[in-house]
Amino acid sequence: MSNLKGILIGFGNVGRALIKELVSTEHSLDIIGVFSSKGGVFVREDEDLKTLLKLATLDIKLKNHVSFKENFTYQELLEKQEIDVAFVSIPPSYRTGEPNLKIYRSLSKNNVNVITADKTGLAINYNDLLEEYKRKDLFFGYRATVAAGIPAIDLMRGLRGRQVEKIVAVLNATTNYILTLVEKGMSFEEAIKKSIKEKYAEPDPTVDTHGWDPAAKISILSGELGTHIPLEKVERIPLDSVSEESIRSSFKEGKRVKYVATFDVVGKKAFVRPHVLDAEDVLAKTVSTHNTIKVLLEDSEIILSGPVGPAWRTAKVMVTDFIEYKAKTNKDT
Amino acid sequence: MSNLKGILIGFGNVGRALIKELVSTEHSLDIIGVFSSKGGVFVREDEDLKTLLKLATLDIKLKNHVSFKENFTYQELLEKQEIDVAFVSIPPSYRTGEPNLKIYRSLSKNNVNVITADKTGLAINYNDLLEEYKRKDLFFGYRATVAAGIPAIDLMRGLRGRQVEKIVAVLNATTNYILTLVEKGMSFEEAIKKSIKEKYAEPDPTVDTHGWDPAAKISILSGELGTHIPLEKVERIPLDSVSEESIRSSFKEGKRVKYVATFDVVGKKAFVRPHVLDAEDVLAKTVSTHNTIKVLLEDSEIILSGPVGPAWRTAKVMVTDFIEYKAKTNKDT
Repeated sequence: MSNLKGILIGFGNVGRALIKELVSTEHSLDIIGVFSSKGGVFVREDEDLKTLLKLATLDIKLKNHVSFKENFTYQELLEKQEIDVAFVSIPPSYRTGEPNLKIYRSLSKNNVNVITADKTGLAINYNDLLEEYKRKDLFFGYRATVAAGIPAIDLMRGLRGRQVEKIVAVLNATTNYILTLVEKGMSFEEAIKKSIKEKYAEPDPTVDTHGWDPAAKISILSGELGTHIPLEKVERIPLDSVSEESIRSSFKEGKRVKYVATFDVVGKKAFVRPHVLDAEDVLAKTVSTHNTIKVLLEDSEIILSGPVGPAWRTAKVMVTDFIEYKAKTNKDT
Repeated sequence: MSNLKGILIGFGNVGRALIKELVSTEHSLDIIGVFSSKGGVFVREDEDLKTLLKLATLDIKLKNHVSFKENFTYQELLEKQEIDVAFVSIPPSYRTGEPNLKIYRSLSKNNVNVITADKTGLAINYNDLLEEYKRKDLFFGYRATVAAGIPAIDLMRGLRGRQVEKIVAVLNATTNYILTLVEKGMSFEEAIKKSIKEKYAEPDPTVDTHGWDPAAKISILSGELGTHIPLEKVERIPLDSVSEESIRSSFKEGKRVKYVATFDVVGKKAFVRPHVLDAEDVLAKTVSTHNTIKVLLEDSEIILSGPVGPAWRTAKVMVTDFIEYKAKTNKDT
């Protein structure tokens, strides 16, 4: 059987980590093209791939590739060549989901399977997007969109048909880190600056501190449980709506303030709010680099917890999707 | 679309709970026959199903059904009628996996999809069994075989391609309960008697206390990670190899003895042994009715924990398999 043909759309931290994963292990995959928002590289020979790997390893932008063509797009490539799978890691707008929603439409039109790390497309348009890919019998892998590193999507799949009442979760590592710093005495401003400097936070920290990121994640989990709450309907109370002083006084009392995402299945509501939690609460114990998901159902709770991100781990989760996609493809042929 | 046709093989606690689940909710399923080891009921009319439900609700054996025919087998039914799916909940021998391995072969020969709660078949013959069903494009659902209630199989599926080093888990609620009683001052003998009386333990308690049950479960998890350790190769140190006195003295020091199942992925070994655990260890905190699975990988741990069993929860997990099976079937037609 000949190798599968893939393209990468996005060459940021995740895209770079991903190309290292996909080349370094045996995946029966030929990478045909790599694209940033500015242009792309058509991989014609081994040397092109080697240079891509070098850029990825040295953390250098795609436009420095010797074969980089400005304004060369994946659409142009798709006109020339059949592609099996696209790995999407472009960060889109939380308001519109663009350019990713357009990218997904264009890929499905060209019968390209998708593996994505972008949560906004699904958070905004969960049902239509997945139905479109299902209807065309295309694979849409999105394990990396929620708590990349711990199998949150798989957890939901394993609970189909069960009477889940509520999901309560710490899904954003950045705000978790910021809160830890505030507990230790920093102001929000200082803590956010430090997080950006250490690359915990995005240059625009409101993605985290205004709850966009955890809201998109809880939105996707709501979709997994069969009642999608679109991103714009998820209530987001900003992180700093709780005062620094009360974060510190809670901490002194042995309690913790966490930025908690909730999906109330029965009430069909989702929200992201700072919460004061008891010390014994498993959510309170979530360290900066971890996520914790608590599923309330029947007479008890299921807990999933573990490390999420950074980019190298997100890339590994996309590879898990790729392995599932390959298994399905092999079955069909 | 016409309803799917199903049979139940096994009418013990799980089979009874399952028939209540399958009838009470909207599943587009017609139950055509129900079988115990002694004979079966061919469901010809609504009245037959109502009587089955009554037996299930009152916890009465199948042979008391007015339409029960001694020695009537599912094979006989399969000769008369096409069946889509069989729900298997017969407890087999941990030594041979029979009669279930024969049942699975017979079902696959007749192109019947399977959803099972039996762990021994897979623990003994994981690769051959799943390959046979895959080759014939038949569904083989087995979520209920490991930690039924928390998505342990899904957890493993979500970790494909990741570098898992070790799985360390408390997978047997009965021995967990027995240890709690010994901590409180009972002898092993008294604790086991109490467990049998309260229906925590089987009449033959060695299934639990000699580690057969957790060994079968860790064996299946090893298969999920791509290196199946067959049941007979899983080392089993009996629960009472640790003295009652040392269980109590550990407890007094704030430690806990737990019956821990381990799969050492790197060393390709699996074993079940009593372990002294520190109080902070998440495994140490596993209460009687819960299971906890710790996955060691990369630089950290993933934890999955929650309530497992009894029969009604196991039945719900089989329904999750059925929902997945239906989704696949709908796609194909």
